[in-house]
Amino acid sequence: MKCYSIGIDFGTEEARAMLVDMDGNIIRNAGFQYPHGVMTEYLPDGTRLGPGFALQHPRDYTEALEHLMRELFAGSWELAERVIGIGVDFTQCTMMPVDEKGMPLCFHEEFRSNPYAYVKLWKHHGAQRQAEKLTVTARKREEAFLSFCGGEIYAETMFPKMLETLEQAPKVYHRAEKFVELADWIPFWLTGSGKRSKSIAGCAALWNPSDGYPSGEYLEEAAAGFGSAAEKKLTGELVDVGAPVGYLTAKRARQYGLPAGIPVAAGLGDCQAAFVGAGLSEEGVLLSVMGTSSCDMLVYPQGIGIPGLYGVSADSMLPGMYGYEAGQATMGDLFGWFVKNWVPGDYMRKAEESGINIFDYLNGLAEAAGPLQSGLLALDWWNGNRSVLLDTDLSGMILGMHMGTRCEDVYRALAEALAFGKRRIIEQFKQYGIQVTKMYATGGVASKNPFLMQVFSDIMGIPVLISGVENGSCVGSAIYGASAAGKKSGGYDSLKEAAEAMGGKVSRVHMPEKRYRTHYDILYEEYRKLYHYFGRENQIMKRLKKQTERGEED
Amino acid sequence: MKCYSIGIDFGTEEARAMLVDMDGNIIRNAGFQYPHGVMTEYLPDGTRLGPGFALQHPRDYTEALEHLMRELFAGSWELAERVIGIGVDFTQCTMMPVDEKGMPLCFHEEFRSNPYAYVKLWKHHGAQRQAEKLTVTARKREEAFLSFCGGEIYAETMFPKMLETLEQAPKVYHRAEKFVELADWIPFWLTGSGKRSKSIAGCAALWNPSDGYPSGEYLEEAAAGFGSAAEKKLTGELVDVGAPVGYLTAKRARQYGLPAGIPVAAGLGDCQAAFVGAGLSEEGVLLSVMGTSSCDMLVYPQGIGIPGLYGVSADSMLPGMYGYEAGQATMGDLFGWFVKNWVPGDYMRKAEESGINIFDYLNGLAEAAGPLQSGLLALDWWNGNRSVLLDTDLSGMILGMHMGTRCEDVYRALAEALAFGKRRIIEQFKQYGIQVTKMYATGGVASKNPFLMQVFSDIMGIPVLISGVENGSCVGSAIYGASAAGKKSGGYDSLKEAAEAMGGKVSRVHMPEKRYRTHYDILYEEYRKLYHYFGRENQIMKRLKKQTERGEED
Repeated sequence: MKCYSIGIDFGTEEARAMLVDMDGNIIRNAGFQYPHGVMTEYLPDGTRLGPGFALQHPRDYTEALEHLMRELFAGSWELAERVIGIGVDFTQCTMMPVDEKGMPLCFHEEFRSNPYAYVKLWKHHGAQRQAEKLTVTARKREEAFLSFCGGEIYAETMFPKMLETLEQAPKVYHRAEKFVELADWIPFWLTGSGKRSKSIAGCAALWNPSDGYPSGEYLEEAAAGFGSAAEKKLTGELVDVGAPVGYLTAKRARQYGLPAGIPVAAGLGDCQAAFVGAGLSEEGVLLSVMGTSSCDMLVYPQGIGIPGLYGVSADSMLPGMYGYEAGQATMGDLFGWFVKNWVPGDYMRKAEESGINIFDYLNGLAEAAGPLQSGLLALDWWNGNRSVLLDTDLSGMILGMHMGTRCEDVYRALAEALAFGKRRIIEQFKQYGIQVTKMYATGGVASKNPFLMQVFSDIMGIPVLISGVENGSCVGSAIYGASAAGKKSGGYDSLKEAAEAMGGKVSRVHMPEKRYRTHYDILYEEYRKLYHYFGRENQIMKRLKKQTERGEED
Repeated sequence: MKCYSIGIDFGTEEARAMLVDMDGNIIRNAGFQYPHGVMTEYLPDGTRLGPGFALQHPRDYTEALEHLMRELFAGSWELAERVIGIGVDFTQCTMMPVDEKGMPLCFHEEFRSNPYAYVKLWKHHGAQRQAEKLTVTARKREEAFLSFCGGEIYAETMFPKMLETLEQAPKVYHRAEKFVELADWIPFWLTGSGKRSKSIAGCAALWNPSDGYPSGEYLEEAAAGFGSAAEKKLTGELVDVGAPVGYLTAKRARQYGLPAGIPVAAGLGDCQAAFVGAGLSEEGVLLSVMGTSSCDMLVYPQGIGIPGLYGVSADSMLPGMYGYEAGQATMGDLFGWFVKNWVPGDYMRKAEESGINIFDYLNGLAEAAGPLQSGLLALDWWNGNRSVLLDTDLSGMILGMHMGTRCEDVYRALAEALAFGKRRIIEQFKQYGIQVTKMYATGGVASKNPFLMQVFSDIMGIPVLISGVENGSCVGSAIYGASAAGKKSGGYDSLKEAAEAMGGKVSRVHMPEKRYRTHYDILYEEYRKLYHYFGRENQIMKRLKKQTERGEED
């Protein structure tokens, strides 16, 4: 009998579910946009949010589940009864406080107007100060975990976000029974199990198999009253990737029209899930998931501490392999910003007249201009810099403008800046002994923007392969679901086997253009110099940001 | 009997003439746009121009004269017979090679397709290499004139432009009897006199009363074959400002419908003319002429060598006073670029719907945003930097962009960058003992953009006074004409007297906003750091420019 696995991917703006067979064919595909979207200015009741806030409403996720399952099966029991496993991935680190029943604190009337009781989305940028505090103390104490989180604790991860809540909303912090990542909470919602995923704990909460979470002593030294954060607020047995955390409860089974008892795999970050989703299990191959931002992963047999990568975690994607995670804080959203805030009306009109979308129009112009014309150089730090500087307070820069600088020149410079940023990341891997020989790219930007992918290949000097599957994370989650089911139920016993059988195929290959190599090598040296100058030497971007936060005080 | 003076101002895009009475009332006003405009890509016959070229056609100026005189008098002999003097100013340094009859070489059939036989406009940027060569040699020889041209020979001035012609088009150079600035050539056209203006020689050809032009020995050492450049190609007796170089010939008098014999004053740069045009003769008051670019002048009793100012010339504006000249290479054209290449269609549409022009619309938004919101900082070097770096190869920069950065934030940052640049200039004056206590602003940008003028006042911390007269240079030229006529003919014997009687009145005053002072002082320190870094320490802008010049070579 044909078997299916459900992969569910919770993205920034919407959730997506796929019904996938054991050969990786996508049988059904459903999407659901979050009613509240990303809350950056107000809570639903009108409460004003501070700068850097990016929250979500957990009700959106449970609604998404109902909607997606209904759409996937449309009442067809014939399909539903063949589901052997469920896998879930979520943007990371997206987290929230819950009560003793596992319910979000924002569901409590008393916390309805408290921003800290809601979900902090991965890109919530309120915890930079806390991240710095935690880093300083860890360095002072020479904490071993530092070498596995890039030497700095990134403000988007679990502990800074928890500490932000302790400092800004102590009532919420103390009322919280636990803080959970949503990649753990969704499986809890489905199964009632309080177990957590090792991948999640390792990638965003500084956990590792030999030492566990950071010690209470360290946490207390970093901030008084924070000592029990790991011990008390992150409870729950840890489970391997590809293993079940529990089984679909009768209640949820009824609600979704599925058989009860389906194994639900340990959750993953969306990027981790995408790795096997692209069919990868080989070492030294970089997978870049390019959406709003970009997440870069590879696996390697040894665990090496590399400064500026924010995750080196044992077994985070494949058992027996260390998963490495790096990333860039902008990608698609940089172009979104550009089109909204920069591109003149003339260009929009011409694109419309030609009947193509503005990105394809700009791609055509930028491609025709070529790499040697503009004299521009940019730093793509509109959302700060993730790897290798780990600093959310950095900002974007562009230089070289003159009276002849056109919109398409800037567009190209932004594309190049993103590619230089990626080259900086693989250079960092290389410096620590991991040679990246090719890059797989997946996600909306990778499939829709061949111009950008060619620029990546030219600047990085390696082939860029575009994964044919539209949502690699979702397929990846289905692969973990098939692994949680195991061979006995019609799935797979090994993740490697499952990835190879079910992972996406390559749809397009970009080879680096040799004639641009010298030019881009020269430009990259210039880029590196500015990278260091604005990233470390002259902290002007951070000071300017503080200056705006002062507002009209004086 | 009521007397009039004619002021004629040759700008970048058009020429303007005014008939002014002895109280400074403008009786008639005429304009003429150059048919060929600024030639940056092609000569009239289709000859392709190199990057950085900005040429003009001298026929445009003679046509302008005919047209302007016809329009000014409309055949009225009653007005024409009361003209007692003519003054002329021109953009500077705008120059061309002429033959032994004083005619432009581009009028010769054999040079019709040779770009170097045409007028090099002030903003022709082909002589950077030559400027560097001349500077290096002057420094080596410790030439005295260096201290009066800011320590560097600016690429827009006479000798670099002449040397460029020698190197790039030796035939043109050797065929030329002379090289002349157009501010000297127009009076020659009117009077037939080969005399030149001291102001012109001092401001753009390194002349000073004690040493004359640079020595042949120096010029020859800088470039073989260039030794006789001053001695042979800049011949002509030098005349004081406010004195006549000659008298209107019978031929021109007939042509223009004017009486013959009217004294024509020694020509001036348009900025120099604007100084008395604004009614100024006081020391330590800065006059900024704000058009496409901006030119800043003041007078002071002593001659002090100040690095980075490109003109300290005895008697260049007022006899007995040293004239100081500094400037910024962009002003109005930066906003022109911004509107064309950056402002999204949405903004244009909304401005149109509100029935106001886009600049007023952006001013309103930027004013509402206030100075503390954006976190942006820019360097306004789209056309390079004039004072105090004297480098045409620098380029624009903007940093601090994030996902919330809006078009109006950038607009404000550009306005602030221009003001920081001006503050840097008055800081330079101060450092060398000249305290600037207030700034007069004139020109199109000054009168049309009160938002920008307030930003200048806030950032510089001094009052900014807007001169009521629309074209200060043109009125200034009329003042010089009245002085050339002298009291005996109904004019004035002293320039100071003429300036006070005829110069423009103040129409608007901007006082610095105290509550922004701390903020802007902090930002200015940041600006200064970047100014030094990109201006001196990291020559990336120059290297990027060279990189684009390499084109697709490799």
